[in-house]
Amino acid sequence: MRIVIPLFDRFTALDAVGPYEVLKFLPGVEIVFAATEPGPVRDVPRWLAITADATFTDIDSCDVLVVPGGPGARELLRDGELLDWLRRMHQGSIWTTSVCTGSLLLGAAGLLTGLSATTHWAAIDVLESFGATYTAERVIFQGKIVTAAGVSSGIDMALALAARITDQTTAEAIQLAIEYDPQPPFDAGSPAKASRAARALLARGIR
Amino acid sequence: MRIVIPLFDRFTALDAVGPYEVLKFLPGVEIVFAATEPGPVRDVPRWLAITADATFTDIDSCDVLVVPGGPGARELLRDGELLDWLRRMHQGSIWTTSVCTGSLLLGAAGLLTGLSATTHWAAIDVLESFGATYTAERVIFQGKIVTAAGVSSGIDMALALAARITDQTTAEAIQLAIEYDPQPPFDAGSPAKASRAARALLARGIR
Repeated sequence: MRIVIPLFDRFTALDAVGPYEVLKFLPGVEIVFAATEPGPVRDVPRWLAITADATFTDIDSCDVLVVPGGPGARELLRDGELLDWLRRMHQGSIWTTSVCTGSLLLGAAGLLTGLSATTHWAAIDVLESFGATYTAERVIFQGKIVTAAGVSSGIDMALALAARITDQTTAEAIQLAIEYDPQPPFDAGSPAKASRAARALLARGIR
Repeated sequence: MRIVIPLFDRFTALDAVGPYEVLKFLPGVEIVFAATEPGPVRDVPRWLAITADATFTDIDSCDVLVVPGGPGARELLRDGELLDWLRRMHQGSIWTTSVCTGSLLLGAAGLLTGLSATTHWAAIDVLESFGATYTAERVIFQGKIVTAAGVSSGIDMALALAARITDQTTAEAIQLAIEYDPQPPFDAGSPAKASRAARALLARGIR
């Protein structure tokens, strides 16, 4: 089973690495990071680079597509070549998935029209502009399309997906392997839960 | 504030990227990935590489050290050069932290003697062989040393650390930015919670 994770300039690393760290345990998979050019692809603020070992043109098809988001995703919503590639991957895929604003790319490729979907909470309007209905769930399965909410939600998505691809015991064994027993020190992980002060700070910029 | 994340062959990507994705939001920080040689450093099973932009010898000191774990960590427990470097970094650091079996490296460097510490649940014996007392908590602060449990715990650790470095509102704003509102589909993230079947499957190897 071939899993492909496309990378692009200014992606968000955890969007990609969260699912990667779960799905790499699945029996019989290989995972390939791909980009327009081979070599290191930088995140924001450019302190991290993950190597693309393949180019998009190298890859004719895949079984599972995992599209990460990040600030760079919004700049690719009119990139015809990338959107064509996403549509081609989706055509042959068993599962087409996204994390965070990766769903905007699926939306721009026309894959979410009429579906319930999710994205980072700050990108709801853009998601809906592609004909999807934003639903405030962490992970949404719609046929073979799976969208996850912001950044860290990719871990939850990948565990749910792992159970569908194999079975619940396998997904639980993976959860144990990565000791995913989350204990966030605060309860501020969604706009509904975060304090007014935290929301205001984020809106004006933490850094 | 300079944050350094050392990489080594066969590290675990999420150990490094979880804290990175949190700490990168802190005001006034820069984060540097470092390794013996500059360039891509591979994980297990070698499908992922993160670029080291600096070498260990480039780095004289840092404010925050984040040591990831991974299968490769166990092979470095007698690597005198790396352990010397870790001790030097610790000498000048404000915070010295580890995720997963990264704590074995801190232990091998003699930094955990007499302290409570944690690590991946499968590495407890090795941790204790360095004179630390394993404690089944997700994140343990002991003076300026902070150890976190397996793989995904680095996110929880980094949020707690972010609050100490700045304040709780800033840490909550970061939690909101990465939409860290975990909803694992199963409750199997620790040996105490996982089913016997999941534990048995992991013990004999999922792949």
